[in-house]
Amino acid sequence: MKMLINVPETVVADALRGMAACHPELIVDVENRVIVRRDAPVEGKVGLVSGGGSGHEPLHGGFVGSGMLDAACPGEVFTSPVPDQMVRAAAAVDSGKGVLFIIKNYTGDVLNFDMAAELAEDEGIQVAKVLVNDDVAVTDSLYTAGRRGTGATLFVEKIAGAAAAEGAPLERVESIARRVNELSRSFGVALSPCSTPSKGGPTFELPAGELELGVGIHGEPGRERRAMMTSHEIADYAVQVVVEDLRPESPVLLLVNGMGATPQLELYGFAAEVHRALGERQVAVARTLVGNYVTSLDMAGASITLCQVDEDLLRLWDAPVRTAGLRWGA
Amino acid sequence: MKMLINVPETVVADALRGMAACHPELIVDVENRVIVRRDAPVEGKVGLVSGGGSGHEPLHGGFVGSGMLDAACPGEVFTSPVPDQMVRAAAAVDSGKGVLFIIKNYTGDVLNFDMAAELAEDEGIQVAKVLVNDDVAVTDSLYTAGRRGTGATLFVEKIAGAAAAEGAPLERVESIARRVNELSRSFGVALSPCSTPSKGGPTFELPAGELELGVGIHGEPGRERRAMMTSHEIADYAVQVVVEDLRPESPVLLLVNGMGATPQLELYGFAAEVHRALGERQVAVARTLVGNYVTSLDMAGASITLCQVDEDLLRLWDAPVRTAGLRWGA
Repeated sequence: MKMLINVPETVVADALRGMAACHPELIVDVENRVIVRRDAPVEGKVGLVSGGGSGHEPLHGGFVGSGMLDAACPGEVFTSPVPDQMVRAAAAVDSGKGVLFIIKNYTGDVLNFDMAAELAEDEGIQVAKVLVNDDVAVTDSLYTAGRRGTGATLFVEKIAGAAAAEGAPLERVESIARRVNELSRSFGVALSPCSTPSKGGPTFELPAGELELGVGIHGEPGRERRAMMTSHEIADYAVQVVVEDLRPESPVLLLVNGMGATPQLELYGFAAEVHRALGERQVAVARTLVGNYVTSLDMAGASITLCQVDEDLLRLWDAPVRTAGLRWGA
Repeated sequence: MKMLINVPETVVADALRGMAACHPELIVDVENRVIVRRDAPVEGKVGLVSGGGSGHEPLHGGFVGSGMLDAACPGEVFTSPVPDQMVRAAAAVDSGKGVLFIIKNYTGDVLNFDMAAELAEDEGIQVAKVLVNDDVAVTDSLYTAGRRGTGATLFVEKIAGAAAAEGAPLERVESIARRVNELSRSFGVALSPCSTPSKGGPTFELPAGELELGVGIHGEPGRERRAMMTSHEIADYAVQVVVEDLRPESPVLLLVNGMGATPQLELYGFAAEVHRALGERQVAVARTLVGNYVTSLDMAGASITLCQVDEDLLRLWDAPVRTAGLRWGA
C-alpha cells in the first residue's frame, strides 16, 4: 500500500507541521499535539475543545477557528488522545467562562476526556462535557459501549461553536450541544476498507462485490454485508434507518459525507438519491453539506447525518465560521 | 471496482441532480449540462465561463458563485463539453459586458471553446478566451499540444472572478487571467491510477512500489516512473521542477492539491514538506490552500501549484468568494 508519507511513526507530527505551515491563524504545538486558535482565549467566550484519533480529518483540527472549536487534540491514528493534551487545550482556551469538551463516544476517548475534565477542574477550569453518539448502525460495537459518535460531531461543533461565539454561557452552550446530538442520527457505508500507516495495508477485508452497511469511521463492522448495491438502493437503506430512528418533525440539516476516497462526482450523485429518498418520506431539507468532513483515511464510501433543526439552531448553523475545513461568512 | 453510482451512463447527470438539490443558489440545467449562478446575469459584470470533462470536481461546477465563475459546462467523464453547452452558458451569464472563457489546454476543450466563441459572437456576445497551461511535467502529452492545464485553473478562476466582481471590464479581466496563468506552474504525482465509471476499473497500470512523477489529471503519463519515494523526496522533486521553471521573484500562492483519494492527513504532511522545500529555495509563501480541488476521480496522489503574486493579485485572491467548493468572506 503506497502512502504519501515519510515513515508511519511521524505521520501525525508531519500533518501537524503542515497545519502550522499552512494556517498561521492557528497555534500548533507539534510536540504536545494541541491545535489552538491563535487568538485564544477569547475574552468572555466559552472555550470549545474536541479531539480524537487522527485519520478523520478535517475533523477535529480542521474545525478550529472562530465560530467553531477553540482547540483540538489529535491522537495517534485511530487512537484516543491522552488527558494531558486535553488539559493543555483547556488551559489555553479558557477565558474564565469555562470549557466544553465535545467527545465522540469511543471508550478510550470517554475515559481520557473524563480524566482530563477532573484534572482541568483541579486547575480551576470549569468543564462541561457532551457525548456525541449519533450512529444508528449498531450499539456496543468494537471500541464503543452504546452508539458511536460520527458525523453529528460536525453539527455539534459548528452549532455549539456559534452559540459560544455569540457569548452564550457554558450552561447554554452545553445544552445546545446536547440538543444537537439528540436531534442527530447518522449511518455510513463502506465500499472499501481503510489502510492505516502503521499497518501499511487494509485494516479489514471487504470482498469484491460486497459493501458494508453501517460501517464505523474506523472500519468497525456495521449491520450487515450485502452484494454491492446501487447509489439509489444505498440511499434508500441509509435514509430509512436514519429517519425511522430520528422521526424528524421539522426540516433537517443534511451532511452527505465522504469517507475519504470516494470521488466528489459520486458523492453528489449519492446526494441526489438521498434528497429523493428524504422527499419520498416527507422530510424537508433546510441545508445540505457535501464533502469529506468526517473521514476514515482512504476508505471509499459515504455516510449521511441528519439533524432536525428549529429556527434558532438553523440560525446558529448559518452563522459565520472560519476554519481550515469549514468556512463561510467570515 | 465498486463505485457509489447507479449506472455508468448516468453518473454526470446524477451528480448534476445532486448539485441542484444541494445548492439552491445555483441553476442546474441537468439536460443541457450547464451550471449557472442563480443571480446571473449580474448587471454590469463580465461573465466568467469554464468547463471541461467531469471527474475533476469541485472543478469547475463547484466554483460557480459570487466572486468566481458565473457558469460551468461539465462534459462526460474526462471528455470535453460541447460548444452548445458553452454557448448556452455564455448567453445565460452575459450582462452585455462580455464573457471570458477559461479553457484548460486539452485539444478537445480548445477546439470546442473556439467554436463556441464564434457561435456566441454570432449571437452578439463579446467573448475573450484564456488558455490555462501550467503543468510543467511534459509538453505534447496524451490529449494535449503544449502544456496541460491543471491546478492553476483554480487560481485563474478565483482571481479573475474577483476582478470581474469588482466591475473590471472584459479586457482587464482577460489580462489578469492571462497573467495569473503565466505566473503559475504545477506538477503532480500519482500513487495509484484512477478508475472511470465507464471502464469500471483503472485506466492505466501503476505497479506496486512505483509512482508516476508528472502525472496528468486524467492519468496521462508524466516524466518518469520511479520506485516509491517518501513525502520528503516527492516534495523536493516537485518543488524543484516548479521553481526552476517559474523562478518566482515575489511570494507565491501555494495549492497543495489532492488527486481525490489521498487522505487529508497525508496531504498535510506533504504540505509540510512542500513548505520546507520552498523555504530551502528562498521562496516565500503568501497563502496556502490544501485539499481536493482539481481531482482525478479516485486517484491517490497530489499536485502542487505555485502562483507568483503581487499585492494586487493577492488582494484579489483574498476577496470574498461564495461557491460550493471554495468559500470565504461571504
